[in-house]
Amino acid sequence: MKSEHINLPEDIETAADKRPYVSQAVIKRLPRYFRYLRELIAEGTMRISSGELSARMHVTASQIRQDLNCFGGFGQQGYGYNVNYLYAKICEILGVSAGFKAVIIGAGNLGKALARHTMFAKRGVDVAAMFDVRPELIGTTIGDIPVLAMDELENYCRTYSVDIAVFTMPKEAANDVALRLIDTPVTGIWNFTARELDLREYGKVVESVHMGDSLMTLCYGLCRVQEALEEEESGIK
Amino acid sequence: MKSEHINLPEDIETAADKRPYVSQAVIKRLPRYFRYLRELIAEGTMRISSGELSARMHVTASQIRQDLNCFGGFGQQGYGYNVNYLYAKICEILGVSAGFKAVIIGAGNLGKALARHTMFAKRGVDVAAMFDVRPELIGTTIGDIPVLAMDELENYCRTYSVDIAVFTMPKEAANDVALRLIDTPVTGIWNFTARELDLREYGKVVESVHMGDSLMTLCYGLCRVQEALEEEESGIK
Repeated sequence: MKSEHINLPEDIETAADKRPYVSQAVIKRLPRYFRYLRELIAEGTMRISSGELSARMHVTASQIRQDLNCFGGFGQQGYGYNVNYLYAKICEILGVSAGFKAVIIGAGNLGKALARHTMFAKRGVDVAAMFDVRPELIGTTIGDIPVLAMDELENYCRTYSVDIAVFTMPKEAANDVALRLIDTPVTGIWNFTARELDLREYGKVVESVHMGDSLMTLCYGLCRVQEALEEEESGIK
Repeated sequence: MKSEHINLPEDIETAADKRPYVSQAVIKRLPRYFRYLRELIAEGTMRISSGELSARMHVTASQIRQDLNCFGGFGQQGYGYNVNYLYAKICEILGVSAGFKAVIIGAGNLGKALARHTMFAKRGVDVAAMFDVRPELIGTTIGDIPVLAMDELENYCRTYSVDIAVFTMPKEAANDVALRLIDTPVTGIWNFTARELDLREYGKVVESVHMGDSLMTLCYGLCRVQEALEEEESGIK
Protein backbone atom coordinates (compact mmCIF):
# COMPACT_ATOMS: atom_id res chain seq x y z
CA MET A 1 0.00 0.00 0.00
CA LYS A 2 2.87 2.28 0.76
CA SER A 3 4.14 2.71 -2.77
CA GLU A 4 0.76 2.72 -4.48
CA HIS A 5 0.49 5.29 -7.21
CA ILE A 6 -2.36 7.76 -7.02
CA ASN A 7 -3.75 9.86 -9.84
CA LEU A 8 -4.26 13.35 -8.50
CA PRO A 9 -7.09 15.43 -9.89
CA GLU A 10 -5.69 18.05 -12.22
CA ASP A 11 -7.76 20.96 -11.01
CA ILE A 12 -6.37 21.02 -7.48
CA GLU A 13 -6.52 24.81 -7.36
CA THR A 14 -10.26 25.07 -7.95
CA ALA A 15 -11.41 24.34 -4.41
CA ALA A 16 -9.05 26.89 -2.87
CA ASP A 17 -10.12 29.57 -5.31
CA LYS A 18 -13.77 29.28 -4.35
CA ARG A 19 -13.13 29.16 -0.62
CA PRO A 20 -16.20 29.76 1.57
CA TYR A 21 -16.26 31.29 5.04
CA VAL A 22 -14.22 29.13 7.41
CA SER A 23 -14.81 29.32 11.16
CA GLN A 24 -12.03 30.16 13.62
CA ALA A 25 -12.48 26.71 15.20
CA VAL A 26 -11.68 25.00 11.90
CA ILE A 27 -8.71 27.30 11.28
CA LYS A 28 -7.35 26.48 14.74
CA ARG A 29 -7.57 22.76 13.92
CA LEU A 30 -5.74 22.98 10.58
CA PRO A 31 -2.25 23.13 12.13
CA ARG A 32 -3.06 19.87 13.92
CA TYR A 33 -3.81 18.21 10.59
CA PHE A 34 -0.49 19.57 9.36
CA ARG A 35 1.33 18.00 12.32
CA TYR A 36 -0.37 14.63 12.10
CA LEU A 37 0.07 14.42 8.34
CA ARG A 38 3.77 15.24 8.73
CA GLU A 39 4.08 12.32 11.11
CA LEU A 40 2.24 9.97 8.73
CA ILE A 41 4.58 10.99 5.93
CA ALA A 42 7.61 10.45 8.18
CA GLU A 43 6.25 6.94 8.87
CA GLY A 44 5.86 6.27 5.17
CA THR A 45 2.04 6.08 5.27
CA MET A 46 0.59 6.95 1.86
CA ARG A 47 -3.12 6.59 2.47
CA ILE A 48 -5.38 6.87 5.52
CA SER A 49 -9.12 6.51 6.11
CA SER A 50 -10.95 9.25 7.98
CA GLY A 51 -11.60 6.59 10.65
CA GLU A 52 -7.90 5.89 11.18
CA LEU A 53 -7.03 9.59 11.11
CA SER A 54 -9.85 10.18 13.60
CA ALA A 55 -8.53 7.56 16.05
CA ARG A 56 -5.08 9.09 15.85
CA MET A 57 -6.17 12.70 16.28
CA HIS A 58 -8.87 12.02 18.88
CA VAL A 59 -11.55 13.82 16.88
CA THR A 60 -14.55 12.20 15.22
CA ALA A 61 -14.33 11.05 11.60
CA SER A 62 -17.31 13.23 10.82
CA GLN A 63 -15.48 16.25 12.27
CA ILE A 64 -12.53 15.54 9.98
CA ARG A 65 -14.78 15.26 6.93
CA GLN A 66 -16.56 18.48 7.87
CA ASP A 67 -13.30 20.35 8.46
CA LEU A 68 -11.76 19.29 5.18
CA ASN A 69 -14.99 19.91 3.28
CA CYS A 70 -14.54 23.61 4.09
CA PHE A 71 -11.65 23.51 1.64
CA GLY A 72 -13.16 21.20 -0.95
CA GLY A 73 -12.94 17.74 0.60
CA PHE A 74 -9.77 15.99 -0.69
CA GLY A 75 -11.05 12.53 0.28
CA GLN A 76 -12.44 9.80 -1.97
CA GLN A 77 -15.36 7.60 -0.94
CA GLY A 78 -14.08 4.11 -0.04
CA TYR A 79 -10.47 5.15 -0.46
CA GLY A 80 -9.81 7.68 2.27
CA TYR A 81 -7.17 10.35 2.02
CA ASN A 82 -3.97 10.37 0.01
CA VAL A 83 -1.60 11.56 2.73
CA ASN A 84 0.87 13.42 0.51
CA TYR A 85 -1.87 15.13 -1.42
CA LEU A 86 -3.77 16.15 1.71
CA TYR A 87 -0.52 17.39 3.27
CA ALA A 88 0.26 19.46 0.18
CA LYS A 89 -3.22 20.98 0.25
CA ILE A 90 -3.05 21.79 3.96
CA CYS A 91 0.39 23.33 3.38
CA GLU A 92 -1.07 25.44 0.60
CA ILE A 93 -4.03 26.57 2.72
CA LEU A 94 -1.76 27.39 5.67
CA GLY A 95 0.78 29.23 3.53
CA VAL A 96 3.64 26.79 4.20
CA SER A 97 4.44 26.97 0.51
CA ALA A 98 4.05 30.77 0.42
CA GLY A 99 7.67 31.39 1.46
CA PHE A 100 6.89 33.98 4.12
CA LYS A 101 9.78 36.07 5.39
CA ALA A 102 10.01 36.98 9.08
CA VAL A 103 12.04 39.19 11.38
CA ILE A 104 12.31 38.82 15.15
CA ILE A 105 12.15 42.04 17.13
CA GLY A 106 13.96 41.69 20.43
CA ALA A 107 17.16 39.62 20.63
CA GLY A 108 16.70 38.69 24.31
CA ASN A 109 16.45 35.16 25.66
CA LEU A 110 13.09 34.40 24.06
CA GLY A 111 14.01 36.02 20.74
CA LYS A 112 17.22 33.98 20.60
CA ALA A 113 15.41 30.75 21.50
CA LEU A 114 12.88 31.37 18.73
CA ALA A 115 15.60 32.26 16.23
CA ARG A 116 17.21 28.87 16.83
CA HIS A 117 13.93 26.94 16.76
CA THR A 118 13.34 24.55 13.84
CA MET A 119 9.64 25.47 13.84
CA PHE A 120 10.06 28.26 11.29
CA ALA A 121 11.94 26.17 8.73
CA LYS A 122 9.46 23.28 9.14
CA ARG A 123 6.66 25.66 8.26
CA GLY A 124 8.40 27.33 5.34
CA VAL A 125 9.03 30.61 7.14
CA ASP A 126 12.44 32.22 6.63
CA VAL A 127 13.74 34.23 9.59
CA ALA A 128 15.89 36.81 7.83
CA ALA A 129 16.97 39.16 10.61
CA MET A 130 16.59 40.17 14.24
CA PHE A 131 16.35 43.68 15.62
CA ASP A 132 17.33 45.11 18.98
CA VAL A 133 18.05 48.46 20.60
CA ARG A 134 21.05 47.25 22.63
CA PRO A 135 24.31 48.41 20.97
CA GLU A 136 26.25 45.39 22.29
CA LEU A 137 23.94 43.01 20.38
CA ILE A 138 23.86 44.89 17.08
CA GLY A 139 26.21 43.36 14.54
CA THR A 140 26.24 39.96 16.25
CA THR A 141 24.56 36.88 14.79
CA ILE A 142 22.26 34.31 16.42
CA GLY A 143 22.86 31.12 14.47
CA ASP A 144 23.07 32.57 10.97
CA ILE A 145 20.70 35.43 11.67
CA PRO A 146 22.14 38.95 11.93
CA VAL A 147 21.02 41.28 14.72
CA LEU A 148 20.38 44.75 13.26
CA ALA A 149 19.65 48.12 14.85
CA MET A 150 16.00 49.05 15.44
CA ASP A 151 16.57 52.22 13.35
CA GLU A 152 16.84 50.02 10.28
CA LEU A 153 13.54 48.21 10.89
CA GLU A 154 11.19 49.95 8.47
CA ASN A 155 13.76 50.19 5.68
CA TYR A 156 14.71 46.56 6.04
CA CYS A 157 11.09 45.39 5.99
CA ARG A 158 10.43 47.43 2.83
CA THR A 159 13.64 46.43 1.04
CA TYR A 160 13.27 42.72 1.74
CA SER A 161 9.44 42.52 1.66
CA VAL A 162 9.15 41.12 5.15
CA ASP A 163 5.76 39.48 5.85
CA ILE A 164 5.94 38.66 9.56
CA ALA A 165 7.33 40.46 12.60
CA VAL A 166 7.81 38.38 15.75
CA PHE A 167 7.44 40.54 18.86
CA THR A 168 9.65 39.45 21.75
CA MET A 169 10.64 42.90 22.97
CA PRO A 170 9.48 44.30 26.36
CA LYS A 171 5.71 44.86 26.28
CA GLU A 172 6.15 48.60 26.86
CA ALA A 173 7.65 48.91 23.34
CA ALA A 174 5.08 46.74 21.55
CA ASN A 175 2.61 49.48 20.63
CA ASP A 176 5.25 51.85 19.25
CA VAL A 177 6.89 49.15 17.15
CA ALA A 178 3.50 48.02 15.81
CA LEU A 179 2.76 51.58 14.69
CA ARG A 180 6.15 51.79 12.94
CA LEU A 181 5.24 48.72 10.90
CA ILE A 182 1.95 50.09 9.56
CA ASP A 183 3.49 51.50 6.37
CA THR A 184 5.65 48.46 5.67
CA PRO A 185 4.82 45.17 3.88
CA VAL A 186 4.67 43.41 7.27
CA THR A 187 1.14 41.98 7.36
CA GLY A 188 1.41 39.57 10.28
CA ILE A 189 2.54 40.14 13.84
CA TRP A 190 3.34 37.13 16.00
CA ASN A 191 3.07 38.67 19.41
CA PHE A 192 4.83 37.11 22.42
CA THR A 193 4.48 40.23 24.59
CA ALA A 194 1.74 40.59 27.21
CA ARG A 195 0.49 43.71 25.36
CA GLU A 196 -2.69 43.13 23.36
CA LEU A 197 -2.52 44.56 19.85
CA ASP A 198 -5.40 45.21 17.48
CA LEU A 199 -4.24 46.34 14.05
CA ARG A 200 -7.19 45.18 11.97
CA GLU A 201 -7.92 48.74 10.89
CA TYR A 202 -4.47 48.76 9.25
CA GLY A 203 -5.06 45.43 7.52
CA LYS A 204 -2.59 43.59 9.79
CA VAL A 205 -3.14 40.18 11.34
CA VAL A 206 -2.05 39.65 14.95
CA GLU A 207 -1.60 36.22 16.51
CA SER A 208 -0.60 36.29 20.16
CA VAL A 209 1.09 33.71 22.34
CA HIS A 210 0.31 35.00 25.82
CA MET A 211 2.54 32.58 27.70
CA GLY A 212 1.75 34.15 31.06
CA ASP A 213 -1.98 33.62 30.50
CA SER A 214 -1.33 30.01 29.60
CA LEU A 215 0.68 29.49 32.78
CA MET A 216 -2.19 30.98 34.80
CA THR A 217 -4.74 28.72 33.12
CA LEU A 218 -2.58 25.79 34.20
CA CYS A 219 -2.38 27.14 37.76
CA TYR A 220 -6.16 27.56 37.81
CA GLY A 221 -6.52 23.90 36.82
CA LEU A 222 -4.05 22.89 39.53
CA CYS A 223 -6.00 24.76 42.20
CA ARG A 224 -9.20 22.98 41.21
CA VAL A 225 -7.50 19.55 41.27
CA GLN A 226 -6.09 20.28 44.72
CA GLU A 227 -9.47 21.51 45.99
CA ALA A 228 -11.08 18.30 44.74
CA LEU A 229 -8.40 16.20 46.48
CA GLU A 230 -8.89 18.13 49.73
CA GLU A 231 -12.65 17.63 49.54
CA GLU A 232 -12.12 13.94 48.93
CA GLU A 233 -9.78 13.68 51.91
CA SER A 234 -12.13 15.57 54.22
CA GLY A 235 -14.93 13.27 53.03
CA ILE A 236 -12.90 10.22 54.00
CA LYS A 237 -12.30 11.59 57.51
CA MET B 1 -10.18 58.77 45.29
CA LYS B 2 -6.85 56.96 45.16
CA SER B 3 -6.30 56.71 48.89
CA GLU B 4 -9.94 56.13 49.88
CA HIS B 5 -10.36 53.47 52.53
CA ILE B 6 -12.65 50.56 51.72
CA ASN B 7 -14.27 48.20 54.16
CA LEU B 8 -13.83 44.73 52.82
CA PRO B 9 -16.47 42.15 53.58
CA GLU B 10 -15.19 39.80 56.23
CA ASP B 11 -16.37 36.60 54.65
CA ILE B 12 -14.23 36.84 51.52
CA GLU B 13 -13.64 33.09 51.48
CA THR B 14 -17.31 32.14 51.25
CA ALA B 15 -17.74 32.75 47.54
CA ALA B 16 -14.70 30.67 46.60
CA ASP B 17 -15.80 27.81 48.81
CA LYS B 18 -19.13 27.51 47.09
CA ARG B 19 -17.71 27.85 43.58
CA PRO B 20 -20.12 26.79 40.82
CA TYR B 21 -19.19 25.32 37.45
CA VAL B 22 -17.08 27.82 35.51
CA SER B 23 -16.84 27.60 31.73
CA GLN B 24 -13.50 27.29 29.90
CA ALA B 25 -14.18 30.63 28.22
CA VAL B 26 -14.38 32.41 31.58
CA ILE B 27 -11.27 30.61 32.83
CA LYS B 28 -9.37 31.71 29.71
CA ARG B 29 -10.37 35.33 30.40
CA LEU B 30 -9.27 35.35 34.05
CA PRO B 31 -5.54 35.82 33.26
CA ARG B 32 -6.51 38.92 31.28
CA TYR B 33 -8.19 40.38 34.38
CA PHE B 34 -5.01 39.58 36.27
CA ARG B 35 -2.90 41.48 33.72
CA TYR B 36 -5.17 44.52 33.54
CA LEU B 37 -5.57 44.73 37.30
CA ARG B 38 -1.78 44.55 37.70
CA GLU B 39 -1.49 47.53 35.38
CA LEU B 40 -4.14 49.48 37.27
CA ILE B 41 -2.29 48.83 40.53
CA ALA B 42 1.00 49.92 38.93
CA GLU B 43 -0.75 53.16 37.91
CA GLY B 44 -2.02 53.68 41.44
CA THR B 45 -5.72 53.24 40.55
CA MET B 46 -7.68 52.08 43.61
CA ARG B 47 -11.18 51.81 42.21
CA ILE B 48 -12.68 51.22 38.78
CA SER B 49 -16.22 50.95 37.43
CA SER B 50 -17.15 47.98 35.29
CA GLY B 51 -17.67 50.53 32.49
CA GLU B 52 -14.10 51.85 32.73
CA LEU B 53 -12.65 48.35 33.02
CA SER B 54 -14.76 47.34 30.03
CA ALA B 55 -13.41 50.19 27.86
CA ARG B 56 -9.87 49.26 28.80
CA MET B 57 -10.23 45.52 28.21
CA HIS B 58 -12.42 45.77 25.11
CA VAL B 59 -15.11 43.52 26.54
CA THR B 60 -18.63 44.60 27.54
CA ALA B 61 -19.34 45.69 31.10
CA SER B 62 -22.02 43.02 31.29
CA GLN B 63 -19.44 40.38 30.29
CA ILE B 64 -17.19 41.53 33.13
CA ARG B 65 -20.03 41.39 35.64
CA GLN B 66 -21.01 37.93 34.42
CA ASP B 67 -17.43 36.65 34.54
CA LEU B 68 -16.81 37.89 38.05
CA ASN B 69 -20.20 36.71 39.25
CA CYS B 70 -18.97 33.16 38.62
CA PHE B 71 -16.73 33.69 41.61
CA GLY B 72 -19.09 35.66 43.80
CA GLY B 73 -19.16 39.14 42.25
CA PHE B 74 -16.67 41.36 44.13
CA GLY B 75 -18.29 44.58 42.86
CA GLN B 76 -20.56 46.97 44.72
CA GLN B 77 -23.53 48.70 43.08
CA GLY B 78 -22.70 52.36 42.38
CA TYR B 79 -19.14 51.95 43.55
CA GLY B 80 -17.49 49.60 41.07
CA TYR B 81 -14.55 47.43 41.92
CA ASN B 82 -11.88 47.89 44.53
CA VAL B 83 -8.81 47.17 42.39
CA ASN B 84 -6.58 45.72 45.11
CA TYR B 85 -9.36 43.54 46.47
CA LEU B 86 -10.35 42.26 43.03
CA TYR B 87 -6.69 41.61 42.19
CA ALA B 88 -6.23 39.66 45.43
CA LYS B 89 -9.32 37.58 44.66
CA ILE B 90 -8.24 36.86 41.08
CA CYS B 91 -4.79 35.91 42.37
CA GLU B 92 -6.40 33.53 44.82
CA ILE B 93 -8.64 31.96 42.15
CA LEU B 94 -5.69 31.58 39.77
CA GLY B 95 -3.40 30.16 42.40
CA VAL B 96 -0.89 33.05 42.31
CA SER B 97 -0.86 32.93 46.08
CA ALA B 98 -0.61 29.12 46.14
CA GLY B 99 3.20 29.13 45.89
CA PHE B 100 3.42 26.48 43.17
CA LYS B 101 6.81 24.92 42.54
CA ALA B 102 7.94 24.13 38.99
CA VAL B 103 10.75 22.32 37.21
CA ILE B 104 11.72 22.80 33.57
CA ILE B 105 12.51 19.63 31.66
CA GLY B 106 14.88 20.34 28.79
CA ALA B 107 17.67 22.90 29.22
CA GLY B 108 17.84 23.80 25.52
CA ASN B 109 17.28 27.27 24.07
CA LEU B 110 13.59 27.45 24.93
CA GLY B 111 14.06 25.94 28.40
CA LYS B 112 16.78 28.48 29.15
CA ALA B 113 14.69 31.37 27.85
CA LEU B 114 11.77 30.31 30.05
CA ALA B 115 14.04 29.82 33.07
CA ARG B 116 15.16 33.44 32.76
CA HIS B 117 11.66 34.81 32.13
CA THR B 118 10.08 37.01 34.81
CA MET B 119 6.67 35.49 34.06
CA PHE B 120 7.00 32.77 36.70
CA ALA B 121 7.94 35.10 39.54
CA LYS B 122 5.16 37.55 38.60
CA ARG B 123 2.66 34.70 38.92
CA GLY B 124 4.00 33.32 42.17
CA VAL B 125 5.54 30.21 40.59
CA ASP B 126 8.99 29.19 41.81
CA VAL B 127 11.21 27.47 39.22
CA ALA B 128 13.33 25.24 41.43
CA ALA B 129 15.34 23.15 38.97
CA MET B 130 15.89 22.16 35.36
CA PHE B 131 16.52 18.67 34.02
CA ASP B 132 18.39 17.49 30.95
CA VAL B 133 19.98 14.33 29.57
CA ARG B 134 23.09 16.05 28.19
CA PRO B 135 26.07 15.42 30.50
CA GLU B 136 27.73 18.73 29.55
CA LEU B 137 24.71 20.67 30.90
CA ILE B 138 24.26 18.75 34.15
CA GLY B 139 25.74 20.60 37.10
CA THR B 140 25.58 23.99 35.38
CA THR B 141 23.14 26.74 36.41
CA ILE B 142 20.83 28.90 34.29
CA GLY B 143 20.48 32.12 36.26
CA ASP B 144 20.19 30.68 39.77
CA ILE B 145 18.53 27.46 38.63
CA PRO B 146 20.56 24.23 38.74
CA VAL B 147 20.46 21.79 35.82
CA LEU B 148 20.08 18.25 37.16
CA ALA B 149 20.27 14.82 35.52
CA MET B 150 17.03 13.31 34.22
CA ASP B 151 17.68 10.25 36.43
CA GLU B 152 16.93 12.40 39.46
CA LEU B 153 13.58 13.67 38.14
CA GLU B 154 11.09 11.51 40.07
CA ASN B 155 13.05 11.65 43.32
CA TYR B 156 13.44 15.40 43.10
CA CYS B 157 9.74 15.94 42.40
CA ARG B 158 8.79 13.78 45.38
CA THR B 159 11.36 15.27 47.78
CA TYR B 160 10.52 18.89 46.93
CA SER B 161 6.78 18.44 46.25
CA VAL B 162 6.98 19.84 42.74
CA ASP B 163 3.58 20.91 41.33
CA ILE B 164 4.40 21.81 37.73
CA ALA B 165 6.66 20.31 35.06
CA VAL B 166 7.44 22.50 32.06
CA PHE B 167 8.07 20.36 28.96
CA THR B 168 10.61 21.84 26.58
CA MET B 169 12.41 18.63 25.63
CA PRO B 170 12.20 17.11 22.10
CA LYS B 171 8.64 15.95 21.41
CA GLU B 172 9.82 12.33 21.01
CA ALA B 173 10.58 12.22 24.75
CA ALA B 174 7.36 13.90 25.94
CA ASN B 175 5.25 10.76 26.40
CA ASP B 176 7.90 8.84 28.33
CA VAL B 177 8.60 11.74 30.67
CA ALA B 178 4.88 12.27 31.26
CA LEU B 179 4.53 8.60 32.28
CA ARG B 180 7.46 8.94 34.68
CA LEU B 181 5.65 11.79 36.44
CA ILE B 182 2.45 9.87 37.11
CA ASP B 183 3.49 8.69 40.56
CA THR B 184 4.93 12.03 41.64
CA PRO B 185 3.22 15.08 43.18
CA VAL B 186 3.47 16.88 39.79
CA THR B 187 -0.13 17.69 38.95
CA GLY B 188 0.32 20.17 36.10
CA ILE B 189 2.25 19.86 32.86
CA TRP B 190 2.96 23.00 30.88
CA ASN B 191 3.67 21.49 27.50
CA PHE B 192 5.72 23.36 24.89
CA THR B 193 6.35 20.28 22.75
CA ALA B 194 4.30 19.51 19.63
CA ARG B 195 3.24 16.21 21.24
CA GLU B 196 -0.33 16.20 22.53
CA LEU B 197 -0.68 14.77 26.02
CA ASP B 198 -3.84 13.61 27.76
CA LEU B 199 -3.23 12.63 31.38
CA ARG B 200 -6.70 13.24 32.79
CA GLU B 201 -7.03 9.59 33.77
CA TYR B 202 -4.04 10.11 36.07
CA GLY B 203 -5.51 13.28 37.59
CA LYS B 204 -2.98 15.52 35.84
CA VAL B 205 -3.74 18.84 34.15
CA VAL B 206 -2.03 19.60 30.84
CA GLU B 207 -1.85 23.08 29.33
CA SER B 208 -0.12 23.25 25.98
CA VAL B 209 1.54 26.11 24.15
CA HIS B 210 1.71 24.77 20.60
CA MET B 211 3.87 27.55 19.18
CA GLY B 212 4.06 25.94 15.75
CA ASP B 213 0.26 25.84 15.54
CA SER B 214 0.09 29.49 16.48
CA LEU B 215 2.61 30.39 13.76
CA MET B 216 0.51 28.47 11.24
CA THR B 217 -2.67 30.25 12.32
CA LEU B 218 -0.86 33.51 11.66
CA CYS B 219 0.29 32.29 8.23
CA TYR B 220 -3.27 31.25 7.42
CA GLY B 221 -4.44 34.77 8.24
CA LEU B 222 -1.66 36.24 6.08
CA CYS B 223 -2.67 34.11 3.10
CA ARG B 224 -6.26 35.31 3.39
CA VAL B 225 -5.18 38.99 3.61
CA GLN B 226 -2.99 38.56 0.55
CA GLU B 227 -5.78 36.84 -1.37
CA ALA B 228 -8.12 39.69 -0.52
CA LEU B 229 -5.53 42.23 -1.71
CA GLU B 230 -5.02 40.34 -4.95
CA GLU B 231 -8.76 40.19 -5.55
CA GLU B 232 -8.98 43.92 -4.90
CA GLU B 233 -6.16 44.63 -7.33
CA SER B 234 -7.63 42.41 -10.04
CA GLY B 235 -10.95 44.22 -9.49
CA ILE B 236 -9.28 47.59 -10.09
CA LYS B 237 -7.73 46.41 -13.36
